[in-house]
Amino acid sequence: MTTPINIGFLVYPDVIQLDVMAAYQVLTFPPNITVYLIWKTLTPITSNDGLIITPTTTFDNCPSLDVIFVPGGGMGQVEVMRDQEILNFLQQKSATAKYIASVCTGSMILAAANLLQGYKATCHWAFREQLAMLGVDVIPERVVIDKNRITGAGVTSGIDLGLTLVSLLCGDDIAKMTQLMLEYNPKPPFDAGIPETAGKSIVNPLMQYGKPLVEAFLAQTREIVQQIKL
Amino acid sequence: MTTPINIGFLVYPDVIQLDVMAAYQVLTFPPNITVYLIWKTLTPITSNDGLIITPTTTFDNCPSLDVIFVPGGGMGQVEVMRDQEILNFLQQKSATAKYIASVCTGSMILAAANLLQGYKATCHWAFREQLAMLGVDVIPERVVIDKNRITGAGVTSGIDLGLTLVSLLCGDDIAKMTQLMLEYNPKPPFDAGIPETAGKSIVNPLMQYGKPLVEAFLAQTREIVQQIKL
Repeated sequence: MTTPINIGFLVYPDVIQLDVMAAYQVLTFPPNITVYLIWKTLTPITSNDGLIITPTTTFDNCPSLDVIFVPGGGMGQVEVMRDQEILNFLQQKSATAKYIASVCTGSMILAAANLLQGYKATCHWAFREQLAMLGVDVIPERVVIDKNRITGAGVTSGIDLGLTLVSLLCGDDIAKMTQLMLEYNPKPPFDAGIPETAGKSIVNPLMQYGKPLVEAFLAQTREIVQQIKL
Repeated sequence: MTTPINIGFLVYPDVIQLDVMAAYQVLTFPPNITVYLIWKTLTPITSNDGLIITPTTTFDNCPSLDVIFVPGGGMGQVEVMRDQEILNFLQQKSATAKYIASVCTGSMILAAANLLQGYKATCHWAFREQLAMLGVDVIPERVVIDKNRITGAGVTSGIDLGLTLVSLLCGDDIAKMTQLMLEYNPKPPFDAGIPETAGKSIVNPLMQYGKPLVEAFLAQTREIVQQIKL
């Protein structure tokens, strides 16, 4: 509990803010953890739902990280997956990080940076085929750990993944205290959190609504597959 | 799904960011909902875990709200509970809002504004006795609805409460689609989200750690009880 731990969250325009904020709230509970919001500049960026997020450090000034954490995004994530400056930064920080983590489609960014090929990993349910196309061994679970890669499913898995990280970094007792402090005793009002329980009458219109996003991601995924010659 | 809905989140220095961000992410999914982060000025404030939050409107410029939402905070909440300008704003907006909502100790702020007396409501497990002292009929559940008051338990209840609000505002199908989009199929790594399951070895050190906060809140609660002569 006394060793200082640095955790860095990549942020970028159109990031899904809860992909960041859920794990951020969990991981700031242990007093020895310091978190950073990292972007190219300190200029505030806007999340996919309009939240203004102010980075706290830049790629150039970011300290050495114990954990590098990559969140998913909306349409803006396509740009991130082909931005060599961002992918280089992730590769550089991952070389010395204890853990390399993602939530939602953040694992596709890790794969775009060639940091997840051959590993077991997960992502948001609607993008698992694309993650597999990138050479990742996709496991359809909430949180997947393979060596030092820790990946989470869609958006809200950030709480489960954050608590898992706290237990790995600070022990089970501190993780349980964090869970209790956040009163994480979930009671979803519906049994609709995954396609298997939501049913077709919910899945189909949502897939229709999300079609432009899935297709834009797919075009970029195909481009990466060409480049890395999988 | 076509009627415009305005939802305003009070923010303030030392607010618990996930109290806001969980419900915010849920409530921005339906395209007819617009959310606002409301404070006295547009100057960014800092959350209890160091997140810089930029308000999007002020007390003076805030439009009419369908939902007014009050999050809990760290030590800075004590100031909020005795700030007549804030309490007046909440009273004014509540007079015309369809729903008056809170998460975590946000219900104590609603009670400080005399907006929850005689209602059934909940809050973070460690503050329920204080909420009762303020004349609220405390129900120890995850989400409590009494007429148009909707209150949630500690921090992470914001997801459950947000989905409940979406179902009330936009119907069950949109709420289920929102849940599926956020892949809210929680799998807490421990059974430690409430004191009853966490056990004394976790509860006692956490209560010790949180003692200064609970005591500062209690002093303010006692002051309010005197003022409103319960």
